[in-house]
Amino acid sequence: MNKIVLDENEIPKKWYNINPDLPSPLPEPRNPEGGENIENLPRVFSRGVLEQEMSMERWIKIPREVRDVYKMIGRPTPLFRAKGLEEMLDTPARIYYKREDYSPTGSHKLNTAIAQAYYAREDGAERLTTETGAGQWGTALSLACSLMDLQCKVYMVRVSFNQKPFRKTIMQLYGGEVVPSPSDHTEFGRKILSEDPEHPGSLGIAISEAMEEALQYENVYYSLGSVLNHVLLHQTVIGLETQKQLEIAGETPDVMIGCVGGGSNFGGAVFPFIKDKLDGKLDCEFIAAEPRSCPTLTQGEYRYDFGDTAGMTPLLKMYTLGHDFVPPSVHAGGLRYHGMSPQVALLVKEGIIKARAVEQHKIFESGVKFAKAEGVVPAPETCHAISVAMDEARKCRETGEEKTIVVSFSGHGLLDLKGYGDYLEGKI
Amino acid sequence: MNKIVLDENEIPKKWYNINPDLPSPLPEPRNPEGGENIENLPRVFSRGVLEQEMSMERWIKIPREVRDVYKMIGRPTPLFRAKGLEEMLDTPARIYYKREDYSPTGSHKLNTAIAQAYYAREDGAERLTTETGAGQWGTALSLACSLMDLQCKVYMVRVSFNQKPFRKTIMQLYGGEVVPSPSDHTEFGRKILSEDPEHPGSLGIAISEAMEEALQYENVYYSLGSVLNHVLLHQTVIGLETQKQLEIAGETPDVMIGCVGGGSNFGGAVFPFIKDKLDGKLDCEFIAAEPRSCPTLTQGEYRYDFGDTAGMTPLLKMYTLGHDFVPPSVHAGGLRYHGMSPQVALLVKEGIIKARAVEQHKIFESGVKFAKAEGVVPAPETCHAISVAMDEARKCRETGEEKTIVVSFSGHGLLDLKGYGDYLEGKI
Repeated sequence: MNKIVLDENEIPKKWYNINPDLPSPLPEPRNPEGGENIENLPRVFSRGVLEQEMSMERWIKIPREVRDVYKMIGRPTPLFRAKGLEEMLDTPARIYYKREDYSPTGSHKLNTAIAQAYYAREDGAERLTTETGAGQWGTALSLACSLMDLQCKVYMVRVSFNQKPFRKTIMQLYGGEVVPSPSDHTEFGRKILSEDPEHPGSLGIAISEAMEEALQYENVYYSLGSVLNHVLLHQTVIGLETQKQLEIAGETPDVMIGCVGGGSNFGGAVFPFIKDKLDGKLDCEFIAAEPRSCPTLTQGEYRYDFGDTAGMTPLLKMYTLGHDFVPPSVHAGGLRYHGMSPQVALLVKEGIIKARAVEQHKIFESGVKFAKAEGVVPAPETCHAISVAMDEARKCRETGEEKTIVVSFSGHGLLDLKGYGDYLEGKI
Repeated sequence: MNKIVLDENEIPKKWYNINPDLPSPLPEPRNPEGGENIENLPRVFSRGVLEQEMSMERWIKIPREVRDVYKMIGRPTPLFRAKGLEEMLDTPARIYYKREDYSPTGSHKLNTAIAQAYYAREDGAERLTTETGAGQWGTALSLACSLMDLQCKVYMVRVSFNQKPFRKTIMQLYGGEVVPSPSDHTEFGRKILSEDPEHPGSLGIAISEAMEEALQYENVYYSLGSVLNHVLLHQTVIGLETQKQLEIAGETPDVMIGCVGGGSNFGGAVFPFIKDKLDGKLDCEFIAAEPRSCPTLTQGEYRYDFGDTAGMTPLLKMYTLGHDFVPPSVHAGGLRYHGMSPQVALLVKEGIIKARAVEQHKIFESGVKFAKAEGVVPAPETCHAISVAMDEARKCRETGEEKTIVVSFSGHGLLDLKGYGDYLEGKI
């Protein structure tokens, strides 16, 4: 079997919330000294997602309209067996990959964008604001807003805005308004521009601008693409579908691998399996793959920190490199984040999830091999997971173990070919 | 039902060859006066495809290995219902689109690339040469060669080579050697460069260079991405799958629409349905959509002409704008071809296929509307078909007819965002 497809009616009816199943209680978000950051949340997020953020309900119903839009964008996504890669590696392992690149925007981000747009509209929002770095999240939210009849405004880190004109084009094509950040649309942006009119911007600044605008208007909501529990919750459609598909294939996973920036793809893919592990029903290794240049889990500290650079969010207990850490400009822009989903962080702390850091040169080497063997060009982010999977498969070649390795294939790299070009020309 | 998926075992076992069912005999290829062009064909093409070119067998078995690779790259592709678009247009028509963009290279081209690489390898080839303009065909053949353990050399029109660095990157990533044409690798290329070292190149020149190289070496074969019968034959997997899928949906098509450059996507999608029409089993309109700027079917002559600019191919009876016609540099590079598949041409001549020409501005307007409503960004080529489908759906709104409209969605536009950007900025 090369691919396992599910009928559209097999889209999960409920998302899986890991909060009640965590092995120790999740440390609650805190206000910074003298701050009231938590009180700001109800002013920028919809009631729907705020309830989910702290919910202790294990299963949360997916609204019918959200399921309908999931169908429209092509869910369930197929699970592929990587036979070409197995052959190339001459491994007895069986490698599967869950194809989130089948989404029209090319990554898993749309799964939560649709849900967030839905709850915001139900709550009376007319417009959503957000930030984007590499552009994947802004693209997904622009399309989700188009499908839910909302307006969308994306603050895009200025250096990306200038370097990635096609990302801007696709957001505009979906009807999104794209503004280079820092901008003169917000007080915070104007302040930064007055100090340095050529400021290249950062994800932290863009978050602050998008939140500031949402705080100003009653009918404008803010939307975040990773880190928070409601985001990972929405992404569990990935893992729940994968469970059904592995069952059809007659497989039990021995190793599951995903890449981590804020943790939403990885969390969405593995949380339903972690439940089985905690219930004693599954013996599986979970590996989070991150860039060596932004080694949040492998070198960060487990402590309270802000989710953004400007300190507008509540303090979250997580692994962090410090909210003022500036990751180098690697090609896997989606993984350049100083912090981590508190749920993923707790599970790493508890030893249930392992973390591994991968060099940029190696991820492109793995991506090229994968593309030659399987056809699909993985996003640089996704290459981190593939690289670790290939290492695991090579280990199996040595030991003779016939492990079942499952990779969360978060997205394709067709809008990231510059990185591949640099690699092929020996510049990386 | 939003999408109709088929199990991988439902990939057709045979291709459909329209030659025996054509309503009048196909005029045979001819040598030019004093030329022996037809005699060159066995020196550049594999026996497998040459047999198929002139075959009068209605059904031709798909080799098992080709079917295996079709599975690996994700065939069968799904058929989607465009409910979002129907709603946007407020039409009683039901619109379906066959998703060839689900291929890892983003278009239908891989269907024949895999088959051609297979037959060439069976025949002892070690390397394939080809030309590419916009890049889709060169990308597909590079991947097919990687999957079939062959080398691949792509002569890429110099102006595209310079303007589309990402196309070059993806071909190289798949292991293809990419050479800007005219090049100093061939006598013909050197001759042109000696006259004009800055020559921008053309598809005709690139074909001549690729053929010249294949003629020189025993183990080097040449591969063509459209026009010829074996190419359209391989593409009939599209139409055969669509037949099964429409049956599952309980639909009979009233209108089928595809875009035409050389005719391979359109032919592959509609030939199996044309058989049913000729058999009196189906009452359906077939519309070929072409660019107004390269109006082969709507303004060309039906006569013998060369398939390439340099006159190295045999003469084919087809609609043509003249083999020295230079189409303007439109964004739908895949449709910039002076000629047409002889089979498609004959069916147009016989009135079984209708043709319609569409302005560039209108195709992007349609593409943006489609992307906002359905999520997927169509390739500029594909936008021609979508534009005609939208016109047909609007007619249904006026007449109240509940027609079933089927669009062959030949590919996505993620590597063509420059055209969309120009359109959104008002430059088109």
